Amino acid sequence: MDELTIFGVPGSLRQNAYSTSLLEAARELAPKDARIEIGDIRGFPVFNQDDENDAPAPVRKFQEAARAADAILFALNEHNYGLSAAEKNAIDWGSRPYGQSAWDGKPAGLMSASVGMLGGARAQYELRQSMVFLNMFPINRPEVIVTFAPQKFDAHGRLTDETARKMITGHLSELVRFTRVLKHSH
Amino acid sequence: MDELTIFGVPGSLRQNAYSTSLLEAARELAPKDARIEIGDIRGFPVFNQDDENDAPAPVRKFQEAARAADAILFALNEHNYGLSAAEKNAIDWGSRPYGQSAWDGKPAGLMSASVGMLGGARAQYELRQSMVFLNMFPINRPEVIVTFAPQKFDAHGRLTDETARKMITGHLSELVRFTRVLKHSH
Amino acid sequence: MDELTIFGVPGSLRQNAYSTSLLEAARELAPKDARIEIGDIRGFPVFNQDDENDAPAPVRKFQEAARAADAILFALNEHNYGLSAAEKNAIDWGSRPYGQSAWDGKPAGLMSASVGMLGGARAQYELRQSMVFLNMFPINRPEVIVTFAPQKFDAHGRLTDETARKMITGHLSELVRFTRVLKHSH
Amino acid sequence: MDELTIFGVPGSLRQNAYSTSLLEAARELAPKDARIEIGDIRGFPVFNQDDENDAPAPVRKFQEAARAADAILFALNEHNYGLSAAEKNAIDWGSRPYGQSAWDGKPAGLMSASVGMLGGARAQYELRQSMVFLNMFPINRPEVIVTFAPQKFDAHGRLTDETARKMITGHLSELVRFTRVLKHSH
Repeated sequence: MDELTIFGVPGSLRQNAYSTSLLEAARELAPKDARIEIGDIRGFPVFNQDDENDAPAPVRKFQEAARAADAILFALNEHNYGLSAAEKNAIDWGSRPYGQSAWDGKPAGLMSASVGMLGGARAQYELRQSMVFLNMFPINRPEVIVTFAPQKFDAHGRLTDETARKMITGHLSELVRFTRVLKHSH
Repeated sequence: MDELTIFGVPGSLRQNAYSTSLLEAARELAPKDARIEIGDIRGFPVFNQDDENDAPAPVRKFQEAARAADAILFALNEHNYGLSAAEKNAIDWGSRPYGQSAWDGKPAGLMSASVGMLGGARAQYELRQSMVFLNMFPINRPEVIVTFAPQKFDAHGRLTDETARKMITGHLSELVRFTRVLKHSH
Repeated sequence: MDELTIFGVPGSLRQNAYSTSLLEAARELAPKDARIEIGDIRGFPVFNQDDENDAPAPVRKFQEAARAADAILFALNEHNYGLSAAEKNAIDWGSRPYGQSAWDGKPAGLMSASVGMLGGARAQYELRQSMVFLNMFPINRPEVIVTFAPQKFDAHGRLTDETARKMITGHLSELVRFTRVLKHSH
Repeated sequence: MDELTIFGVPGSLRQNAYSTSLLEAARELAPKDARIEIGDIRGFPVFNQDDENDAPAPVRKFQEAARAADAILFALNEHNYGLSAAEKNAIDWGSRPYGQSAWDGKPAGLMSASVGMLGGARAQYELRQSMVFLNMFPINRPEVIVTFAPQKFDAHGRLTDETARKMITGHLSELVRFTRVLKHSH
């Protein structure tokens, strides 16, 4: 079976963000027939539709890598009960220029972590709503929602919580399965 | 009665954005005892929590103006069935540094416009969810949702649709009333 | 190709509800290789988990027909910016008893109509969130959102608006395509 | 100061529902200048708009008690990532007949509990969206979200978790404060 490429979208620009650590855990835990490639969202300007055909190099590199992938894996940080500006910005840039969306028709996974008790869940449901317009196909379960994050990662930002690692393993397994189902349909 | 200051948050960086035109209409239609001041969101970097104490001058100016206002009026452009990155970015910057949120405890209005049939309504409900965390007090009605925007604005971006103008007048009237109610509570 | 059965869930108990008319339009417009069977939600008590193993006959009949279907088509009436109680009640009954959900793993379509300007869209996004837990796979587009319903249906409740009829035709076509894709995966 | 009446809306018909236990805890913890009256939602038919002027006695009693209250306190059980049918049904009945909504203009509190990790939070945000249309004024914080409910209630259904009890005390205190603010505005 050919290897699938899953493109990971980080949710934060800060050093040692939990969302980045989730992507690193996913890279470790990926099934044998899939490879996680983590996108770089640094150096993006705030999206301005007037400039959508004139994106700077870091944006173009991100768009191309996302377009080439078989599936997308969003790692979310929740800011103010919603998507972080950094993540929404990466999603909006990835959706343009008109007619060249990197997201169109792709299967998607979602993971989130937060210091609080809801683990970024609210941002996940918000992103699922955007996926209707983006024409993405998110998987349902197991959901990866990591609550009280400081107890689940070690000092180096490595996800050490066994329950969370199992959720990610299950999520990736379902994402790969679902991606193969959708690929056969084309 | 002393004049209220309502701080308008634009929803887009593009020239001639519908959300900016909504704010300009609101400025024209404001009740006598209120003044709309339109914020400037140009020149903002994408929010990075590592830099929250080190915001550049345009962000600091925006934060200070927002903090000084009696009420906030958000004008939304919907991108991918959610808040635009530009608007979420302004909201996230305005909410920081920790303990100095410009939004805390403030009454809020919401207006949106889009070329499509739902007029940005989805972004409004998303922002209302963020307001729970931001501890803002949004008004309920009349909602300002401008559908099929190209038919409602003239070539100079002026809102000409009478129904939409009446919705804005009603929204501002309720925002002013509600702001005065909440002010008396302190 | 074998015929698919699509089970239609009505959104209202009232006579001549728009949601029922949408299901009737869908039955007329169904592709040749699919058949719409409209469920009956009359005579249901309000769901009480204590009675989930003891459902009355109309509920059991509904559950069995839903379980036997290849795909589900929800027709929504929006009440108070959310799902109608009648529809949520049918969904909750259909999801039980534990382990026997009629919805599990099924592809789904969504249609809504309302007298107002948003056509029941808010109820659609709410139902999509429930589908994450129900493990349903909703299609994305074209969305079927019928605004200003009194202008789109005739005196006998027949959907006469050509644009709306085309949306339904497109929605059913995508639902059938997607259902066949998912079926091949088992 | 005159005593306020807060009308509690239960979220479930089952015996010993967590949402009912939350209301009982709220009754115990109410501030001295407020009284919690718990509504009875048993014996309601599923809402049918054709019958809205012809509600049976238990519905009329509920509507009248809700109309007479100064504020509303919703206790939620989450079913399938949304409001329970029982609660949405009570809300829809309470909102009718047209022009006589029991909810109109009222301040509101929200509490939820669930066996799972998100404590019914999704249902709370859904209800907040309905409140825009219902013209209710929900408070923001502290939110009352009780996760892993079986660890927080004793065998008699009494809420024993101290953190949860403090959240309810704080929520009621803010609801009473906010209710008095809004009352002075009339």
